[in-house]
Amino acid sequence: MEVGICKQDMLQKKKNAVLVDGVILNGPIMDSKAGEKFVEEACKIIMEEVIQKANDVTEKVCEWRAPETLKKILDLEMRDTGESHQKLLQLCQDVIQYSVKTSHPRFFNQLYAGIDYYSLVARFITEALNPSVYTYEVSPVFLLVEETVIKKMIEFIGWEEGDGIFNPGGSVSNMYAMNLARYKFCPEIKEKGLSSLPRLVLFTSEECHYSMKKAASFLGIGTENVYFIKTDERGKMIPEELEKQVQRARKEGSAPFLVCATAGTTVLGAFDPLDEIADICEKHGLWLHVDASWGGSALISRKHCRLLHGIHRADSVAWNPHKMLLAGIQCCALLVKDNSGLLKKCYSAKAAYLFQQDKFYDVSYDTGDKSIQCSRRPDAFKFWLMWKALGTTGLEERVNRALALARYLVEEIKKREGFQLLLEPEYANVCFWYIPPSLRKMEDGPEFWQKLHEVAPIIKERMMKKGSMMLGYQPHRGKVNFFRQVVISPQKDSG
Amino acid sequence: MEVGICKQDMLQKKKNAVLVDGVILNGPIMDSKAGEKFVEEACKIIMEEVIQKANDVTEKVCEWRAPETLKKILDLEMRDTGESHQKLLQLCQDVIQYSVKTSHPRFFNQLYAGIDYYSLVARFITEALNPSVYTYEVSPVFLLVEETVIKKMIEFIGWEEGDGIFNPGGSVSNMYAMNLARYKFCPEIKEKGLSSLPRLVLFTSEECHYSMKKAASFLGIGTENVYFIKTDERGKMIPEELEKQVQRARKEGSAPFLVCATAGTTVLGAFDPLDEIADICEKHGLWLHVDASWGGSALISRKHCRLLHGIHRADSVAWNPHKMLLAGIQCCALLVKDNSGLLKKCYSAKAAYLFQQDKFYDVSYDTGDKSIQCSRRPDAFKFWLMWKALGTTGLEERVNRALALARYLVEEIKKREGFQLLLEPEYANVCFWYIPPSLRKMEDGPEFWQKLHEVAPIIKERMMKKGSMMLGYQPHRGKVNFFRQVVISPQKDSG
Repeated sequence: MEVGICKQDMLQKKKNAVLVDGVILNGPIMDSKAGEKFVEEACKIIMEEVIQKANDVTEKVCEWRAPETLKKILDLEMRDTGESHQKLLQLCQDVIQYSVKTSHPRFFNQLYAGIDYYSLVARFITEALNPSVYTYEVSPVFLLVEETVIKKMIEFIGWEEGDGIFNPGGSVSNMYAMNLARYKFCPEIKEKGLSSLPRLVLFTSEECHYSMKKAASFLGIGTENVYFIKTDERGKMIPEELEKQVQRARKEGSAPFLVCATAGTTVLGAFDPLDEIADICEKHGLWLHVDASWGGSALISRKHCRLLHGIHRADSVAWNPHKMLLAGIQCCALLVKDNSGLLKKCYSAKAAYLFQQDKFYDVSYDTGDKSIQCSRRPDAFKFWLMWKALGTTGLEERVNRALALARYLVEEIKKREGFQLLLEPEYANVCFWYIPPSLRKMEDGPEFWQKLHEVAPIIKERMMKKGSMMLGYQPHRGKVNFFRQVVISPQKDSG
Repeated sequence: MEVGICKQDMLQKKKNAVLVDGVILNGPIMDSKAGEKFVEEACKIIMEEVIQKANDVTEKVCEWRAPETLKKILDLEMRDTGESHQKLLQLCQDVIQYSVKTSHPRFFNQLYAGIDYYSLVARFITEALNPSVYTYEVSPVFLLVEETVIKKMIEFIGWEEGDGIFNPGGSVSNMYAMNLARYKFCPEIKEKGLSSLPRLVLFTSEECHYSMKKAASFLGIGTENVYFIKTDERGKMIPEELEKQVQRARKEGSAPFLVCATAGTTVLGAFDPLDEIADICEKHGLWLHVDASWGGSALISRKHCRLLHGIHRADSVAWNPHKMLLAGIQCCALLVKDNSGLLKKCYSAKAAYLFQQDKFYDVSYDTGDKSIQCSRRPDAFKFWLMWKALGTTGLEERVNRALALARYLVEEIKKREGFQLLLEPEYANVCFWYIPPSLRKMEDGPEFWQKLHEVAPIIKERMMKKGSMMLGYQPHRGKVNFFRQVVISPQKDSG
């Protein structure tokens, strides 16, 4: 190691430079003025190319390129030497140009859409401040904000008290709940693991989100130990079937511990009958988790909250404000009714380097040990700023409008030739087939359905290549490919 | 349900409004011009209050307020009606003022610091575009970028091929690896779970990150089945001890499946001897995972990559470019040597609504089923843009500089009265005690150490209340509270 004063001829500008191991230490290595200018110029591009165009229906929703073509267009390779600011700004332009505009009024491909300016500002602040939410000392504002938002969400669920945490996705929230229910069922699992235990079994509907299977596999429970409960023709869990399956599991000698109900299924937007399911859970002493990732936002609407009637009886709820409420990817809360510190007991590892107990403030504000993550983003903050800006009334309007738009769309589909509704929607998911003229006179039968199955992918391809619209489709439980449209963007103009 | 043309007197501005369920559907509900203006004004605040002040050592690193005081200052409550833009901008100011400035030159509290302008721009683009990375159709650019970045990181590890995924945190990457190793060991676990299996056992050092315990508990393995291997005085795993523990586990009839080595421990910055550990893993047929969340960035430096000698023999590696390389919270890759699709086989749930097989493009680009998440952020993108901007050489300089600064700091500590080094650092973690004048003449003994233990929290409190510096401290393996300083900010001026 060499530490010393560098020779005059090595110093271009700075006297008394400190040289260690070939590195001149004093003086920043970054040109911060140039960096700031670069940020300013890039922000201008973002404002013009993304934010101001978000409302413009004449823009393309996507500029489709096949993977091999796009690879050639984008200069993806990372090299030994860096690029000029000019080149980098062009790269930013290209990234924007060939990315899908999820805030475009014709983006209906997922269960989120649109742009919320307040959430966006909160996200810019987050990125600039670059916080990590685990201890009060490094994230004082964001931890208090998270606490406030969780408390408010709990009010809407209808619990008197509770706890919660924001997670990177509803899938992760569902995993948390599954693990929490398991811990409550048998706290020794945390230390002992599952190997000597009876087979744990959980119940969820056939229409549940695929994260249930992922969670069961990840947590070591196994997908075969997820008992899928039959649903009715609208996609709602049949309580009598649940009762039967719980009894079957008991007879098999396995250990039922959890029912996951869904409030707003992914494809059909169905709501499981929570009150009746809660009765069964109570009777059998099972944890009730409600995956309201998609449907939870209806709780904000006095008109539509009845869809989740009985949710106050749940032990835990997953709810993603990044979907219908437009809080931005990702904003996902897991709410827990327990207020005895179960979340912390279940998840804590008590790392001494992070959660010191001899701090000068009340360390109960250090909530990082409720999480499976170490560094964690302050996702509650964007929801909070948006809520402050719009008020509960503004959020409520957003929900009411999405559901009114769905009803409008349903009426239009009924009126128009060649469109056929899959079923009368309960929520914002409008599922329908488009039957092209060539099939309209065809007899109902396997051939018709086979041909219809091929229609949605072709239309989707055409729309994407044109850049006119993005719309999800899927086959589902014996039904051939149909479109699923959800209209949640506040930019949407149906007139 | 009522769908109809609304009466003239209800229409202030718009004729032929469509009214459904009390909601006027045509016309956006947002004033987008006002929204854009709000974003512009907020961006100005962010630029002035966060970005331009990042380099200013005369600013406070934090404006400390106790939780109860801060609650009173911030108007946290969310109300029925929204706030004015003026009020909201003031709120943004307050959020910034009372948040810790993690990019401040005197922020040494965690293993990340500083600001990188290119990564920041990429993050602003991400937030504006609001993508979710699961299918090529919705995230074409970001998926190609992720593929490119993973390939490049794999090159630095020294594998000829491989696979990978970006996760929300190194803890999550470690969990992925643990589950992947388990799946490789016994693929039926995915369906069957752990209940009928022998006790699975994994090995990691006493100095490993706490996420190992969290992962073992979450995955149903149990923390008791994590066998902690003794380390030497520098914090490095002792290979002979590992060998002994593997044999002990075999004798007990349990099933060893995984060794987690650490490259850059959290507190001491120690690197486990990967080559010797790899020999043992090979001999016993165990998966070798290297948690290089902190130390992985040294791979970029030709001078320091020897710290990870042998890493090419690992089966998986966790590496967080958001730490020493400044890519922004969070940017965490799990890299996997297997190239036979193990990641997808282990994690897939094949949701038909998302991963349709009849798409018009090559669906092997739809990599979302490699993940436990559904919606996922494009964290590779910020690393990519930064890499494009700085080149490999620029990233290398960042690492070399951090390590040179550590050596400089060590020399200074040795020179200055009242400072005592805990040990000669191997990496960037400089661990030391500050011995106040009152203790300098005291005899070495329990009373001295007890008093010294109380020093760091008091100094930290004083520095935070003054806003002059943030520095981590902890007790560690019998050693009383000491400071851990890591200097990685490119803004840092040591002169």
